[in-house]
Amino acid sequence: MVTARSSSPRRLAPRRDLTPLFEPASVAVVGASDDPVKWGNWLARRALRGASRRSVYLVNHRGGEVMGRRAHRALSDLPETPDLAVLAVPPAALERAMDEAIAAGTRAVVVITAGSADGDAGGAREIALADRAREAGVILLGPNCLGIFDAAAELELVPNDLPRGSIGLLSQSGNLALEIGALAEAAGLGFSRFVSLGNQADLEAAELIQDLAEHDGTELIAIYLEDFRDGRAFARAAEIAIRAGKPIVLLAVEHSEAAARAVRSHTGALASDGPAINAACDAAGMHRVLAPQELVDLAQGLLGAGPPRGRRLAVLTDGGGHGGVAAALSRAAGLELPALSAELRQRLRAGLPPTAAVANPIDLAGGGESDVHSYDRTAGATLESGEVDAVLMSGYFGGYTDYAEALSRGEAAAAEALADAVERSGRPLVVQTMHPNGAAAQSLRRRGVPVYGTIERAVGVLAGLADRAGRDPRGVPALPSPAEPIAAASYMDARELLAAGGVPFEPARVVSTAATAVAAAAELGYPVVMKALGTLHKSDTGGVVLGLREERAVEAAFARLRGRVAPPAVVVERMAPLGDSVELIAGVRWDARFGPVALVGLGGVFTELLRDTAVALAPVDEPTARELLVSLRSAPLLLGARGRPPADLDAAASAVAALSRVAAAHPEIAELEVNPLLALPDGAVGLDARVLLRGEARQT
Amino acid sequence: MVTARSSSPRRLAPRRDLTPLFEPASVAVVGASDDPVKWGNWLARRALRGASRRSVYLVNHRGGEVMGRRAHRALSDLPETPDLAVLAVPPAALERAMDEAIAAGTRAVVVITAGSADGDAGGAREIALADRAREAGVILLGPNCLGIFDAAAELELVPNDLPRGSIGLLSQSGNLALEIGALAEAAGLGFSRFVSLGNQADLEAAELIQDLAEHDGTELIAIYLEDFRDGRAFARAAEIAIRAGKPIVLLAVEHSEAAARAVRSHTGALASDGPAINAACDAAGMHRVLAPQELVDLAQGLLGAGPPRGRRLAVLTDGGGHGGVAAALSRAAGLELPALSAELRQRLRAGLPPTAAVANPIDLAGGGESDVHSYDRTAGATLESGEVDAVLMSGYFGGYTDYAEALSRGEAAAAEALADAVERSGRPLVVQTMHPNGAAAQSLRRRGVPVYGTIERAVGVLAGLADRAGRDPRGVPALPSPAEPIAAASYMDARELLAAGGVPFEPARVVSTAATAVAAAAELGYPVVMKALGTLHKSDTGGVVLGLREERAVEAAFARLRGRVAPPAVVVERMAPLGDSVELIAGVRWDARFGPVALVGLGGVFTELLRDTAVALAPVDEPTARELLVSLRSAPLLLGARGRPPADLDAAASAVAALSRVAAAHPEIAELEVNPLLALPDGAVGLDARVLLRGEARQT
Repeated sequence: MVTARSSSPRRLAPRRDLTPLFEPASVAVVGASDDPVKWGNWLARRALRGASRRSVYLVNHRGGEVMGRRAHRALSDLPETPDLAVLAVPPAALERAMDEAIAAGTRAVVVITAGSADGDAGGAREIALADRAREAGVILLGPNCLGIFDAAAELELVPNDLPRGSIGLLSQSGNLALEIGALAEAAGLGFSRFVSLGNQADLEAAELIQDLAEHDGTELIAIYLEDFRDGRAFARAAEIAIRAGKPIVLLAVEHSEAAARAVRSHTGALASDGPAINAACDAAGMHRVLAPQELVDLAQGLLGAGPPRGRRLAVLTDGGGHGGVAAALSRAAGLELPALSAELRQRLRAGLPPTAAVANPIDLAGGGESDVHSYDRTAGATLESGEVDAVLMSGYFGGYTDYAEALSRGEAAAAEALADAVERSGRPLVVQTMHPNGAAAQSLRRRGVPVYGTIERAVGVLAGLADRAGRDPRGVPALPSPAEPIAAASYMDARELLAAGGVPFEPARVVSTAATAVAAAAELGYPVVMKALGTLHKSDTGGVVLGLREERAVEAAFARLRGRVAPPAVVVERMAPLGDSVELIAGVRWDARFGPVALVGLGGVFTELLRDTAVALAPVDEPTARELLVSLRSAPLLLGARGRPPADLDAAASAVAALSRVAAAHPEIAELEVNPLLALPDGAVGLDARVLLRGEARQT
Repeated sequence: MVTARSSSPRRLAPRRDLTPLFEPASVAVVGASDDPVKWGNWLARRALRGASRRSVYLVNHRGGEVMGRRAHRALSDLPETPDLAVLAVPPAALERAMDEAIAAGTRAVVVITAGSADGDAGGAREIALADRAREAGVILLGPNCLGIFDAAAELELVPNDLPRGSIGLLSQSGNLALEIGALAEAAGLGFSRFVSLGNQADLEAAELIQDLAEHDGTELIAIYLEDFRDGRAFARAAEIAIRAGKPIVLLAVEHSEAAARAVRSHTGALASDGPAINAACDAAGMHRVLAPQELVDLAQGLLGAGPPRGRRLAVLTDGGGHGGVAAALSRAAGLELPALSAELRQRLRAGLPPTAAVANPIDLAGGGESDVHSYDRTAGATLESGEVDAVLMSGYFGGYTDYAEALSRGEAAAAEALADAVERSGRPLVVQTMHPNGAAAQSLRRRGVPVYGTIERAVGVLAGLADRAGRDPRGVPALPSPAEPIAAASYMDARELLAAGGVPFEPARVVSTAATAVAAAAELGYPVVMKALGTLHKSDTGGVVLGLREERAVEAAFARLRGRVAPPAVVVERMAPLGDSVELIAGVRWDARFGPVALVGLGGVFTELLRDTAVALAPVDEPTARELLVSLRSAPLLLGARGRPPADLDAAASAVAALSRVAAAHPEIAELEVNPLLALPDGAVGLDARVLLRGEARQT
């Protein structure tokens, strides 16, 4: 499924009323069991917790009793039509159970059972199941899912207990969802809703994001996803939710040889490339994380610290060791620790021991121990100064009870005073303490101040917040109407396609004899370059001869190419000016889920060494292309580092944007690349071009 | 103090008998107090816990009773001479207390009191204190320290409770030590000995490392250090301990503007550069970490998993989500996940559900839930196959009790079977579980299997272990005898010094007129280069003219340089062949603590962009220099990437080694640098040289 090609990109998935799923008036658990190692037992036990809110029916084909209640033999035996049926039946019985649910008139079905014995997600059996549901107007969740949870509705159709809170969690992995739940609970957080996505045969993440965006009880959306399905629809739904004030934290495993081995065998999903996922995150404004703890930590930060403002940080500790560690980690994470102003330093110094440091990091130097309110006075003054975007407190706070009652007396008050200072200043405080489960830490969390047990995690959250500071979502671009597909994919085909789309190249002539080569050179003007066609990495195989300045050189080069690589044809091109240029790479790769993704980076031999690239969903316009170029680590080369003239960024951006438009209009293209794209002081010019059609093997 | 210069590098700090410190026959706490907010109270309380092992005397100048015991007014009042005295007195009373301790005949003194009111470590007052102790043959720990702890001796002269175990901890920060203690306890670990180093006026880390290396109860040494003092002695002591089988994990804050603001104000220590610390770690074989949790995690890994073997990892989970996350993080950390052999896959598949994945990651696909011994069978077979160096288990294991007694029954047995498999195979298993405090996790830890609560930490440990896999410590090189110091530091001085030491340069002539320039060019042979002397970054300011091929070009260039930069003199050099060369940077910087540190990296405009450098304690020999070059990320450029000819690594390594020898023989040099050092297909040649003497300001 490459939905970005087969469906209109502007269209969001059709909205359906998901009330029968989240707030059903009645529920039936099909496969309910007394056997404590069966899913039907775990689900039924928790379904019954909502019995005061709705009718809960247990269904078991053997009849009799389950959990001391009557077990109905079939859905058709129930005294009423259940809004929602949960199917936890053996795989062989799945279709029959589904038919019964439809026949009984249920409005939503949650399928716990794996859709097929071999775990082949997206297989014929699942498609048939989803088709049956859609024809009947029934919402289908799963198959191969863990269930569904709604805190406000007291709906617990899941095998485990989950904490309640304000996070809406969508997850394609049951066990990862349980881990996220355990970590959230430890952080004082929990779920407003949890949807185990399973194989998304019918209900997909995008539709659920739309729903969560409007769900009052949900303040933040957390997602673990392996298959993005219609990736553009997913990103667009995410963008809408984020613009509506609900941050999204996405845990996504990207395609790699090993990750693909894991994920493919799990749900049969087609994992997306890392660049495609990153491009979608920038487009929608999602925060991307790589592990469950990181997800929960960032969620705590986003819920507590609010929208991030910038990278300027003050570190506050009682002890130079904690200050040094926090400062070093913060800098390594790209945060800035500006020296505080003389005025603020003077203000901070009042009431601190003479050995205290107030320049940033701020070290109370035992001041916290002798007067615990040193913490809130210092943090408050620093937050209110506006000289930093956030304060990071690290170390001992929260543990003064260890020493003596006298010392702990003020700690609870100090915690409240810290939270007050945050509210007054409107700027975030993030706390790391070696006593993360102490009373003071819990008070802070209750007041919305994020508290972490290790400095790595606190710094990680601050860096994560700062990464999106002041950056609006880039927006999910619409795809152009497909152009007439190209059939051939030679160097000259790529060059012509790109040139027609507005990517500049030097003029060129295909030649087949030494004489026509000389004539072409004369026509184009010396110096010229000669390239052997038909080899991919021409420069690696000696298929390119540069700097031919006169007729005899052209003849000699032609003979050498013939002898060395025996190409089907040779092209003569006017040689571009190389001095003071920067070699870039610009390309687009079509991701199976997210469609065309544009990439720019430093080109030539440094492409693989530096891996300095920036990506965006294609097509990109000129301002976005420029933004990508300037975001490169090697941007100083373009901006005129060390006495070099600056490159013509407008021209380079224009070439990148043109390339991205061409590629986005050609769904038959798997990859389109200009490498190098030469950024000159006045202009830009492509020196090589490569196109790979879908289904063609990539040569490396 | 630049001890690498002022003392013999081969000499380790003099060994003293530290028994009075760690196993004193009697102890006196001076400043003991009933006031529960005073150090004298916290220390006395814990000192008394050892009262069954030794006499413990409380001293308070007011006399009377403290903690229901007699408080002696002075050390001279005690019925016997205490082996060890702990001084927790006001700063103003410190010298008198010290004099009394010496007069009383104590053999060791631990000074809790800060040495000076303004926190100025290394100040005159401290030096005087240390001198007094040394003259009297008394071991002095501190001042400004937290105390000392010896688990086997039941010696607790610290303000907090600490866990017992096999880690010897040396720390220059009290609060960080407490945090490390709390984290160690949570991991089931603890301390054999703990020494709070304070300002190291007398007893330094190096001497204590020597002692811990021979201490039976200590299996691993953990260190937090701000000031390395005699850095070479420190590194040499560490190397000896590591070669004796005691791994060292070092938490060190490196010099940065902000970190220096923190650390300087803390102990007045002079923080070392990151490169110097890294070079020392490689020389001694220490593991470097950046935060307390990372330290404890790696300690658990080193104690449990034993010496690392390599980077090949198998990931084992029950659920594809955990597998995908673990695989992605592992790859990002530089670990390899090889596809398992067909033979092993077949073996693993037996007894697993048909949907299980066995290629690596291994996904039990619910097999763990239905048969918990799937875990140990699979892990065991994989460890014993030898196809990987370690197995990483991630996800749910340890929580089956959540579901039903029936499922949990086998879990304890499975944990034991896992530990058995580790012992049989001799290869490590590292476990991440969402139930890190469960019974199964605790069983595993008891059997030495490292268990972590989050996947980031488990992967971090595996990467940390792999980083030193198969790498012997590089060794701490001896410094050569100082050569005749150089007085001037011009370009030509640097060039001559280096050339005399064996670094190749093209021949050059200093000229002062156009006519002498032309004559020099004729003598050297065209093409030549002309450089304006007296500017540091010549190429940034137009002070270099390349590719002069004949007389008139030399004259014109001379006139242009005169007009443009008006240099005091001009040098004419034969132009090096530039084609197919790689620009390197090679340099040595003298660190105040570790002495000369050699650095190589990619040169030219990429030096700052790539920050691709390798470092080693100088001087380096040719094989080490070659090792540094090959370890660069950009090494493919040197080895012949993408059709380029390989560079002459022998010549480049020889130039680097020569440079390092020159710099190491010149303690008056702060920095010596050749940038670029051109690595050619046949040879190497320096194109620029720069020397900075100590005390000169660095120009950027």
